[in-house]
Amino acid sequence: MTQTAAIIGGGVIGGGWLARFLLNGWNVNLYDPDPQAERKITAVLKNARHALPMLYDVSLPREGKLKICSTIQEAVAGTSWIQESVPERLDLKQKVFLEIILAAPKDAIIGSSTSGFKPSELQEGLSCPDTVLVAHPFNPVYLLPLVELVPSPANPVFIVNVAKEILTSLGMFPLHVRKEIDAHIADRFLEAVWREGLWLIKDGIATTQEIDDAIRYGFGLRWAQMGLFETYRIAGGEEGMAHFISQFGPCLQWPWTKLMDVPELTDELIQQVASQSDAQSGNRSIRELERLRDNNLIAILRSLKNENTAAGALINEHEQTIKPELPSKINGAMATISRVIPSDWTDYNGHMNESRYGQIFSDAADIIMQTVGANADYIRSGLSYFTVDVQIKFLAETHAGSSIHVKSFVLQGEGKKMKLFHQMFDEDEALLATGEQMLIHVNLETRRACEPHADVLEQLEMIAAIHTTLPDPRRV
Amino acid sequence: MTQTAAIIGGGVIGGGWLARFLLNGWNVNLYDPDPQAERKITAVLKNARHALPMLYDVSLPREGKLKICSTIQEAVAGTSWIQESVPERLDLKQKVFLEIILAAPKDAIIGSSTSGFKPSELQEGLSCPDTVLVAHPFNPVYLLPLVELVPSPANPVFIVNVAKEILTSLGMFPLHVRKEIDAHIADRFLEAVWREGLWLIKDGIATTQEIDDAIRYGFGLRWAQMGLFETYRIAGGEEGMAHFISQFGPCLQWPWTKLMDVPELTDELIQQVASQSDAQSGNRSIRELERLRDNNLIAILRSLKNENTAAGALINEHEQTIKPELPSKINGAMATISRVIPSDWTDYNGHMNESRYGQIFSDAADIIMQTVGANADYIRSGLSYFTVDVQIKFLAETHAGSSIHVKSFVLQGEGKKMKLFHQMFDEDEALLATGEQMLIHVNLETRRACEPHADVLEQLEMIAAIHTTLPDPRRV
Repeated sequence: MTQTAAIIGGGVIGGGWLARFLLNGWNVNLYDPDPQAERKITAVLKNARHALPMLYDVSLPREGKLKICSTIQEAVAGTSWIQESVPERLDLKQKVFLEIILAAPKDAIIGSSTSGFKPSELQEGLSCPDTVLVAHPFNPVYLLPLVELVPSPANPVFIVNVAKEILTSLGMFPLHVRKEIDAHIADRFLEAVWREGLWLIKDGIATTQEIDDAIRYGFGLRWAQMGLFETYRIAGGEEGMAHFISQFGPCLQWPWTKLMDVPELTDELIQQVASQSDAQSGNRSIRELERLRDNNLIAILRSLKNENTAAGALINEHEQTIKPELPSKINGAMATISRVIPSDWTDYNGHMNESRYGQIFSDAADIIMQTVGANADYIRSGLSYFTVDVQIKFLAETHAGSSIHVKSFVLQGEGKKMKLFHQMFDEDEALLATGEQMLIHVNLETRRACEPHADVLEQLEMIAAIHTTLPDPRRV
Repeated sequence: MTQTAAIIGGGVIGGGWLARFLLNGWNVNLYDPDPQAERKITAVLKNARHALPMLYDVSLPREGKLKICSTIQEAVAGTSWIQESVPERLDLKQKVFLEIILAAPKDAIIGSSTSGFKPSELQEGLSCPDTVLVAHPFNPVYLLPLVELVPSPANPVFIVNVAKEILTSLGMFPLHVRKEIDAHIADRFLEAVWREGLWLIKDGIATTQEIDDAIRYGFGLRWAQMGLFETYRIAGGEEGMAHFISQFGPCLQWPWTKLMDVPELTDELIQQVASQSDAQSGNRSIRELERLRDNNLIAILRSLKNENTAAGALINEHEQTIKPELPSKINGAMATISRVIPSDWTDYNGHMNESRYGQIFSDAADIIMQTVGANADYIRSGLSYFTVDVQIKFLAETHAGSSIHVKSFVLQGEGKKMKLFHQMFDEDEALLATGEQMLIHVNLETRRACEPHADVLEQLEMIAAIHTTLPDPRRV
């Protein structure tokens, strides 16, 4: 059954949560007293609908229903997850939690997006704080997997486990912070860097642009995949981590950072930072910057996904849980592929690079392989099909963000041979391209052609027998 | 003429510099008194040869010559760039600079890889410090573009400009640090995070693994493309950077970081970090971790390259400067493509994804387009060729890291039509695949077929006239 989440507070963070739930098939109730809330949510949702489906090579579940509510009571009724993202004031948050607890189902998880407060602070004054914990996400919430999950001793273990399960099902990575602390983990690092950055600007050493370049052309690239310690482990080389620390640890005592003090946020310093930031990015609107950021993140995440590593491995794991059913109908065209074209697939003419048509048809062939039983286990056992010939006809253009689907036919299925024909359509059933593809069954060890397993051959022959009675799809 | 660089000190950093220069076509003289130096350099070079060419979609220049020297004098003679990467001790570095200066050509730039010393400190006691400055790179030096270029007041502006030009020609991004300061810019941030990380471990809040996850699944992904300030500018939304600072600035005064103190590096703390790091990454050797890191970085950098943004835009700019000549011989097969297969192009069978054959043939068609004058300017003017049909034959497997090249033929070139035939070969001239491709000339505004510009058509017809007298390459 479709689950429902309540989003209390619909700013950039609340809106990002809302999009995560909605695009993963949850219904969402929104409560936000701001009269601008619906407009703001619409903007975030537009970005999220553009971005999140591009991470995946399968269709996400059908989007849930969004309901705008006029009270907290209305929003939290019948929900399994309630996410609070109101402004960062402890008294306000505590007041909101009191209201939520009164009306929420007893077993609903109540997460707070707080950047800094400890869960025990949020739980103060609640008669039943079991289900209230910190679930601190990172902007853009619909793309970044990290969520710091911070319980207090008042949260039973099974509540923490349910929370982890739900967050994982949304494609997020719940980092269980085992000991509560102000600002959790990640924000402590962000604060340290932010403070050092303000000093460098105040002292006239570097501008915002120079600082950003120092990050994104250097250690930012390292941190997108390995973080700090694994990077340093490598730097330590064969002698290991202890060697690295004894070599570089002493630098900590050197005057390399402004340890002792916080720069005063004078109007002058604020203006200095703001005008440098204008000079750096002012030619682009916030909307343009958001789109740029999202497209960059999609590209990075997809590249890590292709390597099945770091954050990309999380996406692959999530994708496994939403793998669509194989085509159930084989007595006509088989529905093999349904997906969104990601932004990194377009060429300088602004339409999908021709090589991707081949990839889509190759994915369609994979689905047919799985349908006849030549699945991942089968490949691990040392047998597979290789494509030896493909002919693609390009009939119309396709762009990033388009939803396409593929119908596939088995033209021939006998012995080592499997001949397929694919038709690729857009949302309006316009034919975009066709592909005729010959595959040969091979033994992966000898790298030579061989007969498939009898079960596979039987399935294939059965489908081919049906499909050859259909009108030849190549003539359509 | 081929330029020569001297590498003084061949550890991980010196070796990375060596690889950068060598793979960009420079000759390199290495001086390192360590008897293990050659072995260590070989290991770094192996990684670099695997990694760097994969960033590019063109061939890098022919590798330069490596010479192992037994004295500093021998190493620096006749060089244009000298890079010092000896251990981080000021007295040692100063001694090395004295020796270098005595034997180096007067106009050779002398860069120091120091992480922390100021250039004026390195210049102390030198009679002629003009050419000595800090050029601080980031590991792996052969992949990460950032290099902090820090002059002192003793360096003339033109020396700084020459240094920038040379570093840019190596595909690096010289960040000009305008005011010298201990630890330059990036290392100040790294120190701040490293210190905070050690506290979190010492206080039992988080393990090395948890800290790395907090980075690589969250803000690390943001920083790989935009850095700190542009990210926060977006978070500030339409109200801008000044709004963001006044909202989040006060947190700096909260107890969110261990401002005041440095954890003592007791044996106990060192062991704690080392054993957590073992638990996190100990199942992989340093070599395996290096290869994993490099493959991840290649994937991320290539994804940013495809978006032409952040560090990827730097690679594209560099690639423009090393664009190979268009085929000079048109009276036979045209040499259109010569490249290395990048690691993100292989599928689960371990060989190049079939869609990439289409991409390579599409790139070959681009070269032919440029050869007949349908180049970037021509496309900007609103005219181009679109592929309408391609037939690919897959004859043998190809793997990541392989060098391939393509020979192309114009089978037909008349009116709106351009029909091409491509043959793709491996290093041993084995035929891997062929592609027969029909392109139609279009007007990019009307999206309709039209005749090419007369100059383009004339070139195309001329080549077609020659190629149709050759034996039909499809019969080979």
